[in-house]
Amino acid sequence: MANRKIGAQTVRLENRPYIIGRGNIGGKKESEGPLADSFDQLLDDDMFGEKSWEKAECKMLEAAMEKAMNRAQLKKEDIDIMLCGDLINQIMTSSFAARDLHIPFLGLYGACSTMTESLVIGSMLVDGGFARSILAGASSHFCTAERQFRMPVEHGNQRPTSAQWTATAAGAVVVSQWPHGIAKGMTVVRIAEATIGKVIDAGIRDANQMGAAMAPAAVDTLLNHLQDTGRDIDYYDLVVTGDLGYIGKEIMADLLADAGLDKKKIFSHYDDCGTMLYSKDQDVHGGGSGCGCSASVFAGRLLKDMERGKYKRLLLMSTGALLSTISPLQGESIPGIAHAVSLEVE
Amino acid sequence: MANRKIGAQTVRLENRPYIIGRGNIGGKKESEGPLADSFDQLLDDDMFGEKSWEKAECKMLEAAMEKAMNRAQLKKEDIDIMLCGDLINQIMTSSFAARDLHIPFLGLYGACSTMTESLVIGSMLVDGGFARSILAGASSHFCTAERQFRMPVEHGNQRPTSAQWTATAAGAVVVSQWPHGIAKGMTVVRIAEATIGKVIDAGIRDANQMGAAMAPAAVDTLLNHLQDTGRDIDYYDLVVTGDLGYIGKEIMADLLADAGLDKKKIFSHYDDCGTMLYSKDQDVHGGGSGCGCSASVFAGRLLKDMERGKYKRLLLMSTGALLSTISPLQGESIPGIAHAVSLEVE
Repeated sequence: MANRKIGAQTVRLENRPYIIGRGNIGGKKESEGPLADSFDQLLDDDMFGEKSWEKAECKMLEAAMEKAMNRAQLKKEDIDIMLCGDLINQIMTSSFAARDLHIPFLGLYGACSTMTESLVIGSMLVDGGFARSILAGASSHFCTAERQFRMPVEHGNQRPTSAQWTATAAGAVVVSQWPHGIAKGMTVVRIAEATIGKVIDAGIRDANQMGAAMAPAAVDTLLNHLQDTGRDIDYYDLVVTGDLGYIGKEIMADLLADAGLDKKKIFSHYDDCGTMLYSKDQDVHGGGSGCGCSASVFAGRLLKDMERGKYKRLLLMSTGALLSTISPLQGESIPGIAHAVSLEVE
Repeated sequence: MANRKIGAQTVRLENRPYIIGRGNIGGKKESEGPLADSFDQLLDDDMFGEKSWEKAECKMLEAAMEKAMNRAQLKKEDIDIMLCGDLINQIMTSSFAARDLHIPFLGLYGACSTMTESLVIGSMLVDGGFARSILAGASSHFCTAERQFRMPVEHGNQRPTSAQWTATAAGAVVVSQWPHGIAKGMTVVRIAEATIGKVIDAGIRDANQMGAAMAPAAVDTLLNHLQDTGRDIDYYDLVVTGDLGYIGKEIMADLLADAGLDKKKIFSHYDDCGTMLYSKDQDVHGGGSGCGCSASVFAGRLLKDMERGKYKRLLLMSTGALLSTISPLQGESIPGIAHAVSLEVE
């Protein structure tokens, strides 16, 4: 039997599946941020013409997926599997999007790590010939998350400075066996390896310190990835975590330095989507978060930068904090998880 | 590139991965039912020595997984990926179990279809050489589900006769590239095909009619599986759905007959885990439900029956109803989903 494992947690994708389509959409706050021009669509009203924030988030996820399929010049009948997830209880956003799109559906939950979870599974299924083309995506919405996990939005709760801002955004890509729809001479981004993360519990109990809760998992996944592949961090033009935010990014850099990585290389090769999506004067405190943060930054800014040659090798590691509204009340800490996919320009 | 697709929604697993370990555990009600002797462990107190039902459910899932690994004579270090899910918000049961077991983790949510979702993905990853051995499982707990989705358990809410009883149970299997740990001459169960389901919405809006909500999805997945494989239902000694219950099972049979399948064959080749787990005098009304229903019946009764030669070919189709506590309040109907894996005795 074939063996694609190249280490404890990493597999090599022999056929290096192609990313042949991408789509993203952002809300009002995202339209005011530094990455505004990397979005396919921006909303001036986060209700998106719907009657509830939940329905708006679902419509956003569908819009990102439709855009990704359009770019790939594929119809939904050409997509073998749709893999996605979100933060809403019982992943209703994704489930209703899958109902509307009518594509065979694998529902995932990895908190804010879901974008790479969908890419990890989806790219393995394409690489192994179990699917020709798949859709991988994730979404989040500030208002659906805020009212589910924290306070009624209307309450105008004051947020501690360490709290992060859940992105109102969705991102999706089409991963395929063939470079379908990519014009000759255009840059093609391919997925080379995937690393599946473990749940790492550093004992953080403060739900307003998500970056601190997730950073140890990101460190663990990155160190395992580098060990499994025999690489140093500067093999990648950019290693990018999902939504550690300002505090988590610093913790991540410190922990990597503690693990023996060169500080200068960390400084010049590592960034975090949660620190990229908003500017500091947008009142987002700890930075961006939510499944839609890394999903929309990846399916926009990062892939665009790869297409125009800024990065040749990129490691995407979305990061998730595993908690519910009741787990902290039952004395549980907040563990984290991170999955990674390595991307290469052909 | 390899192509393992044999139809619109079905893949053939060329290497037919082996089920080399199984484990299940049930609660008090399950210990009083007709399948009691097929459980590895039965609780006389559904708190399982823990301080909350949620912690008890997590301990049950871990117990089922430990038992499956023990039967496979594997340690957790030998397991490449753990794939599981549950009904609890943000799948906290599975996430905390993954933290405790410290195995690379892919969190899934397919409502009560999760057992076959984990088997579908897990067996593809093993078949493609992305993992040597994986753990696939799912769990549910009457009290965690009741208080999350319906009423405080202490309230003693009266249930309509169509309502189903969420199983307090967990089940897990080890799927592997090799028949590790299986003694010579022993029956080996292998996974031959996997069919990924679509979300099907029949417009059901009554959360006490889960069987009716899920049956159309089960019918859709079964008909697609039979079409993709070119088989009739009697190719299988048993086709078994997850938790349609008494009402859903009748609807399923009617819809299959409407689709042109022979009624006699349906009657003699089809059953539902939700009608097997409890006897009618156990006051479960519509029958069993919950991710743990098909997970524990499969990892116990069904696999035992395959091992002792009762069934040579079995199609397992866990069935999920996609709703949250707020989706019906926002006017959404309750769509269903079902995934299928075909199992063969070598």
